[in-house]
Amino acid sequence: MKVLITGGAGFLGQRLARELLARGALRITPQGATAEPEPITELVLLDVTRASGLDDARVRSEVGDIAQRDVLERVIDAETTVIFHLAAVLSSGAEADFELGMRINVDATRMLLDVCRERGHKPRVVLTSSVAVYGGELPEEVQDDTALTPESSYGAQKAIAELLLCDYSRRGFVDGRALRLPTVSVRPGKPNAAASSFASAIIREPLNGETTACPVSGATRVLMISPRMAIQCLVAGSEIDAAALGDRRIVNLPGISVSVDEMVETLSQVGGPAAVARVEWEPDETVERIVESWPTSWNTKRARALHFPADASYHAIVQAYLEDELNAPHLRHHLRLPHRRH
Amino acid sequence: MKVLITGGAGFLGQRLARELLARGALRITPQGATAEPEPITELVLLDVTRASGLDDARVRSEVGDIAQRDVLERVIDAETTVIFHLAAVLSSGAEADFELGMRINVDATRMLLDVCRERGHKPRVVLTSSVAVYGGELPEEVQDDTALTPESSYGAQKAIAELLLCDYSRRGFVDGRALRLPTVSVRPGKPNAAASSFASAIIREPLNGETTACPVSGATRVLMISPRMAIQCLVAGSEIDAAALGDRRIVNLPGISVSVDEMVETLSQVGGPAAVARVEWEPDETVERIVESWPTSWNTKRARALHFPADASYHAIVQAYLEDELNAPHLRHHLRLPHRRH
Repeated sequence: MKVLITGGAGFLGQRLARELLARGALRITPQGATAEPEPITELVLLDVTRASGLDDARVRSEVGDIAQRDVLERVIDAETTVIFHLAAVLSSGAEADFELGMRINVDATRMLLDVCRERGHKPRVVLTSSVAVYGGELPEEVQDDTALTPESSYGAQKAIAELLLCDYSRRGFVDGRALRLPTVSVRPGKPNAAASSFASAIIREPLNGETTACPVSGATRVLMISPRMAIQCLVAGSEIDAAALGDRRIVNLPGISVSVDEMVETLSQVGGPAAVARVEWEPDETVERIVESWPTSWNTKRARALHFPADASYHAIVQAYLEDELNAPHLRHHLRLPHRRH
Repeated sequence: MKVLITGGAGFLGQRLARELLARGALRITPQGATAEPEPITELVLLDVTRASGLDDARVRSEVGDIAQRDVLERVIDAETTVIFHLAAVLSSGAEADFELGMRINVDATRMLLDVCRERGHKPRVVLTSSVAVYGGELPEEVQDDTALTPESSYGAQKAIAELLLCDYSRRGFVDGRALRLPTVSVRPGKPNAAASSFASAIIREPLNGETTACPVSGATRVLMISPRMAIQCLVAGSEIDAAALGDRRIVNLPGISVSVDEMVETLSQVGGPAAVARVEWEPDETVERIVESWPTSWNTKRARALHFPADASYHAIVQAYLEDELNAPHLRHHLRLPHRRH
């Protein structure tokens, strides 16, 4: 089968590609049937820059603007069985550039769904959505039936993308599923255009010996998922039978609710007081407003019933970062955690 | 001030225009201030056909496709203080023609908001939304914080339009308010492309001596508002101070929950057994599925706190029809109701 990842050169896109290549197959069960995993014969990575570092004959890297129809027509054909639609302008980015957010988060998503519809074979579309679709006065624990009142353009745009995906699915144009991701952290590399970027930076930069500005207070809570678990959830989401989803195409993925103070406490355990001293507290009202509009806890009964995996704790999230990104499993001992079970 | 009504030649548009002309002014209070009603100097009616029957020097009738930007630029200028955005493809129409629904209900709404943004004076935009944004498994009484899970393209498109309106308002591009209307009934004239069209037809046609097909069962409940009250709510919605709305730009308008059996019972009181015999029961699965996905009751505490008016009963709704449309107040006596208080 052919698989497409939009945003394939991005942080999650790259990791998802590596995971799919390692697995080599997906179990895409036609409704009611029990099927064997089907080999992935071609993995198309679409992005504005060339996806690099994946030396594999199955990979086809395509460079193009996802908001242009001919680009989408080039990467989606009648053999495209699964599409992971990750390309997005993130929260701070969409707040800073409204038009760009609408163009990528709404228009490109709709165009992608339209090209799928035109192809006529009802491909499976896995859309990454976000905690940011919620906002305003929220219950202590957000439920599946809590109304969406986004307080950022990113959240509004993702909510629109979800509505499109659900209606295109209901009409039989695609077999869609929208996975709402908690804040994905700890991310390696540079800060990105997400308002939640600090959540990675306050662990990453101090461990790299660099100072970092924390734009929110220590009491701020963030719902979090490790990149490793996010990837596992995306794959799981692509393999779920449509019948198991029923009418509800949206899943709130399991997350860990953690305060910034608790993050810093964990940083202290791994990097000591020197690392903690590298966190500088510089409140940024815009970031604070966006982040505090997001849920800090949501009910994941449905995700668990659908067998989505979950991080065990915030410590486990930091441990995954040490292992996956820093290649520093020795630091793990500072977390006083048992060795990871494989 | 200038006022624009999109869908100005339509059923609600025409009635709203007459109401605005009769009032002659709107009380559009700048935030915090107390203002006198400001005279309406120009009332622009945009529609695909010419609005007729309104012989008034303040009226400017414009014919054009609302999904074309130059048309919107022609009818919205920096003096346009209030826009009633009523133009829409209704529920059965959007289900039958997906592209047309997207084009009018989503694209035209977005373009209208973009033209407002470009004008830069933050006009007040009153969007008519619908019970159809809800669907699926709903609580007995829908609450303001109940999630939207529309089960029709119309509902999905209206939910998208609401999200756009809220985000454009949050960003200060417009001063928007979305009013979710119950089924507007009893409508005069011909059936329309709403799945709920039968709710008017089973009163209207039998009283006109004509037979009508009822596509749903007698137990089906419909949340209903009279055209008269819908118009009063639209005007009230335009006059509400933005500060009173706060972050929530959406209001579920008061409705009366009534079963089809109760409608027929009321028909019997007005038209007798001969009228009831003109209702033919012809179940239509598509209509039934759409109508039964809608809420039959919702909490209107917020609407009442914002001083939106409400119909008193289903009898009062039918009475309003007899008075406003049939000019048959004598039939009212059959309803055994007190005379209407003015």
